[in-house]
Amino acid sequence: MKLLEERIRKDGVIGAGNVLKVDCFLNHLIDVPFADELAREFYRLFRDCGVNKILTIEASGIGIACLTARFFDCPAVFAKKSKTSNMSGEFYSVLVDSFTHGNTSTVIVNKAYLSPSDKVLIIDDFLALGNALNGLIDIVEQSGAQLVGAGIVIEKAFQGGGDAIRAKGVRVESLAMIESMSPEEGIRYRGK
Amino acid sequence: MKLLEERIRKDGVIGAGNVLKVDCFLNHLIDVPFADELAREFYRLFRDCGVNKILTIEASGIGIACLTARFFDCPAVFAKKSKTSNMSGEFYSVLVDSFTHGNTSTVIVNKAYLSPSDKVLIIDDFLALGNALNGLIDIVEQSGAQLVGAGIVIEKAFQGGGDAIRAKGVRVESLAMIESMSPEEGIRYRGK
Repeated sequence: MKLLEERIRKDGVIGAGNVLKVDCFLNHLIDVPFADELAREFYRLFRDCGVNKILTIEASGIGIACLTARFFDCPAVFAKKSKTSNMSGEFYSVLVDSFTHGNTSTVIVNKAYLSPSDKVLIIDDFLALGNALNGLIDIVEQSGAQLVGAGIVIEKAFQGGGDAIRAKGVRVESLAMIESMSPEEGIRYRGK
Repeated sequence: MKLLEERIRKDGVIGAGNVLKVDCFLNHLIDVPFADELAREFYRLFRDCGVNKILTIEASGIGIACLTARFFDCPAVFAKKSKTSNMSGEFYSVLVDSFTHGNTSTVIVNKAYLSPSDKVLIIDDFLALGNALNGLIDIVEQSGAQLVGAGIVIEKAFQGGGDAIRAKGVRVESLAMIESMSPEEGIRYRGK
């Protein structure tokens, strides 16, 4: 998506250790009018798939997931990273390593909110090694719901997670696919 | 807001220790078409105030904040509970006790995203003792931005946080104000 590729080039900051900082428009300040255009694009890509539920993971996926759910006129479920005192019931759970946070979390979804009758679209802001996405796919499989696919804002394709998940037969649509990046040479997108 | 009051009565679960569970439509599964009506109501209440930025706190405020920001055609900033490797720069910070989680967090906002030229509307899902809201107000004051007010989905008025903040001169608009609640007697709303 050209609009996004240009925005990353303009405002993204490439840091040490393959980190791309886009907190100025995507995951600390969210440029909501811009993010709503990303959500519209996810809708265009998956509108014919019967999606009735969006699944994401806290925290930075929640905004884009809700904006996307508005186009689909359906609920958004966000997987939580810890069990808190205002939650009860039985949970699907999976362990997820975080590239960003450098730790491992138990990620849970209440069993009441995903069932075999659901057609689920996973939405997230980033895909790198695929840890979070693999965790969410695992949760969808535990629930017996149908996985329609995954919509990702930025895929760091050079880290391989997205291609490995596609190789398992999952439809993964990333609005920007970074083939390589460095502070010196900037960003190169796949196929461009 | 009658629609919300009825939804809380229908789907909310009153638990031990003054906990109200609404994770089935507000903060685990988000009923986005419904939440978008809440966002529309925040817009109706604050539309004449020149709001150019929404401020919330991760994680459960992000969805409603983004939906609200869409109506205002402005960005949403979410205060973060920890610093991660993809963040840099200088931060406003404040300590916040969590009623829900039973712990204390350092909450931060990058200084680049709030400035004296901003007119800020704070949005959050819950207001009880007022810890999170007081923390966000503190951050707005640190930034020199103008605080337009706060829009809260559910205020547990009997816990006093909202009234204490109103007494300081902050405009706080809560879409449902719970005056009392118990598993035996159910929910009574303020003035009703």
